[in-house]
Amino acid sequence: MNKKSKNLLNLVRKRKPLIHHITNYVTVNDCANITLGIGASPVMADAIEEAADIAAISNAVVLNIGTLNERTIASMTAAGKSANKKGVPVVLDPVGVGASAFRNDTIAQLANEIELTVLRGNISEIKFMAGLNSETKGVDASESDTADINNAGQIAKGLAKKLNCVVVISGATDIISDGLQVIHIENGHSMLGSLTGTGCMCSSLIGAFCGASPDEPYAAAVTAMLCMGIAGELAYEKAGLVGNGSFHAALHDAISKINSETLERMAKYYEAV
Amino acid sequence: MNKKSKNLLNLVRKRKPLIHHITNYVTVNDCANITLGIGASPVMADAIEEAADIAAISNAVVLNIGTLNERTIASMTAAGKSANKKGVPVVLDPVGVGASAFRNDTIAQLANEIELTVLRGNISEIKFMAGLNSETKGVDASESDTADINNAGQIAKGLAKKLNCVVVISGATDIISDGLQVIHIENGHSMLGSLTGTGCMCSSLIGAFCGASPDEPYAAAVTAMLCMGIAGELAYEKAGLVGNGSFHAALHDAISKINSETLERMAKYYEAV
Amino acid sequence: MNKKSKNLLNLVRKRKPLIHHITNYVTVNDCANITLGIGASPVMADAIEEAADIAAISNAVVLNIGTLNERTIASMTAAGKSANKKGVPVVLDPVGVGASAFRNDTIAQLANEIELTVLRGNISEIKFMAGLNSETKGVDASESDTADINNAGQIAKGLAKKLNCVVVISGATDIISDGLQVIHIENGHSMLGSLTGTGCMCSSLIGAFCGASPDEPYAAAVTAMLCMGIAGELAYEKAGLVGNGSFHAALHDAISKINSETLERMAKYYEAV
Repeated sequence: MNKKSKNLLNLVRKRKPLIHHITNYVTVNDCANITLGIGASPVMADAIEEAADIAAISNAVVLNIGTLNERTIASMTAAGKSANKKGVPVVLDPVGVGASAFRNDTIAQLANEIELTVLRGNISEIKFMAGLNSETKGVDASESDTADINNAGQIAKGLAKKLNCVVVISGATDIISDGLQVIHIENGHSMLGSLTGTGCMCSSLIGAFCGASPDEPYAAAVTAMLCMGIAGELAYEKAGLVGNGSFHAALHDAISKINSETLERMAKYYEAV
Repeated sequence: MNKKSKNLLNLVRKRKPLIHHITNYVTVNDCANITLGIGASPVMADAIEEAADIAAISNAVVLNIGTLNERTIASMTAAGKSANKKGVPVVLDPVGVGASAFRNDTIAQLANEIELTVLRGNISEIKFMAGLNSETKGVDASESDTADINNAGQIAKGLAKKLNCVVVISGATDIISDGLQVIHIENGHSMLGSLTGTGCMCSSLIGAFCGASPDEPYAAAVTAMLCMGIAGELAYEKAGLVGNGSFHAALHDAISKINSETLERMAKYYEAV
Repeated sequence: MNKKSKNLLNLVRKRKPLIHHITNYVTVNDCANITLGIGASPVMADAIEEAADIAAISNAVVLNIGTLNERTIASMTAAGKSANKKGVPVVLDPVGVGASAFRNDTIAQLANEIELTVLRGNISEIKFMAGLNSETKGVDASESDTADINNAGQIAKGLAKKLNCVVVISGATDIISDGLQVIHIENGHSMLGSLTGTGCMCSSLIGAFCGASPDEPYAAAVTAMLCMGIAGELAYEKAGLVGNGSFHAALHDAISKINSETLERMAKYYEAV
């Protein structure tokens, strides 16, 4: 996997794929900056009058329901369908699903009308998507769900098969499956949970790598999670003891400076079944 | 008050209350990060389809009219009423009231339909809320209103009685009243005025402490303003001469690292009547 | 020009003009903070119910279509017309024009209904506005358009005459014309392109200087681009090798600390015809 990831890191910087986001207004600046930091080009456009057009000229589409509303749901649907028609990869981030009937209905509709390439959420969100009992607390994973991490590989694998897409469960250990393979990534740092948007930024990175090489979404998702995990470790080393503001800047520093050598040296993962 | 504040600081980190925000898109990222930094968990959700549901499962609701529009006003009203029904504290930040008839009408409606727990604004905003002449210049306090700070204690006290809530006037000296007590907080630094959102972040911190201990909104408001003031001083010491970007990061650093010892050592306030 | 720029820098800090923005939710926080950093006061208000009122009490209006939608287009039109009626300068940033029919139609309508004071875009956007073939890739300038930079002076000059406003083409070399004069600014650093919103921030700075002295929009535009270019160089010196997050903070540091002496010493430009 290391070899593929190193290749994808080079590709994203060479091809500068255009990544269309319809995302929340809380973390959108971080999403745009992380997309630029890894070497891709972000575009945010959520008006129904242009969502499908922009998706059609993009290299990947990232849909994130963090601050969904009636207007943006229609745009997400249009962008997703347009991407599907053009073979453009679609990443879905089901932020806070389980926390309200509105989110649940919206996600059901999006997953039904759009063919997803990658679905990324925390364990509470993915358990909900898999039809399992989950306890969410707003937009963060619940502690009881997190304790269920031992089953997470099977949950990811089953849901990946069912939705015919790659599924990413991000957390202390990130778990990724395409329905056949399962990989556990052990990079990262708990301090990532003390910044808003680190999940959303993972989805943006997945979009960036999918855009760089649309035929290998599993490798794209793995590479994105490796990059974020490693960047989290580097940022903690540099600024963790200073505080959240410096850690935030250091995280963007690390993503913008990450290279093949760092990736090779620091990646910690194991492939399961 | 120090003892209560130290206790609240411990409680917010232990209980990690969920703080629902319906707020502006200018400073929302800082509001989310300051909420996480102090130890609470933010959720931003402004669709009318879920505003009441999310408020009902939250520990506090923060309403901020910085970039209000017809859609979000309806959601603020729904969230506020839902919070009232469940006994969830409601913090209102009347950003820029006085600057347009639309803001004035909106605030009148919100204050009429929702029982507020804490109202926080600058002196121009609070004077307007109290029915006094105020001169606002956009979203910042006017200089002539600021000069009127000597009467601020009485204004806060009177308005607190009238609205039956805690009133916070933030400025060079922060003034807080619950209608009986009045406290003046002398922490802070003028450089806080050179960053957008430091007022909004105060409202988020008030929400966080109210969520940690819903029965003591006065202590919650005092603790929030002490934390922000002290963090401003620490950030200035560390980065004030470097510039606004470094000061911004240092402010988030300070909030995320503040502890009982710092609070005790640095708090500067006096109780008036 | 140096003398005028130094004077404007003093004026903006003395007068603290109120700069009304109707802008995108991606970079709005940076726009507010850069406005404060240079010494002006930002207000963001996009509801149709107040857009005209806020524009009328402001010293400049900045319209940016980065994340336009039907609701905000109506507000931009109302704010622009209100500003025109009161003699308040209007800056237009046609983000991503050329990337969708919706953006193209919107910009045509805005340019038709509002008298612009300054139009600022990248070379792809300005070529599109001038009715020339342009190749845009999302919101960034295309490489082929950038190669066309030799003609940029004439393009800016022609469009400035046609629209009767100042035109700014930002890029490696910034080109500014009022239809008679043309100036090339050679400050800046390529790393500015790796942060989202550096173009939007230029528009905010132009608004700030126009607000400080509404009768000299050409000098205001030149001063804004000099400040951003110089700040980019200073930020690169300080943090360029560290990474994007530190560069971002250093850019805000530099804007907040820039002074007449720095401007005089570092400005690199030549006037053409």
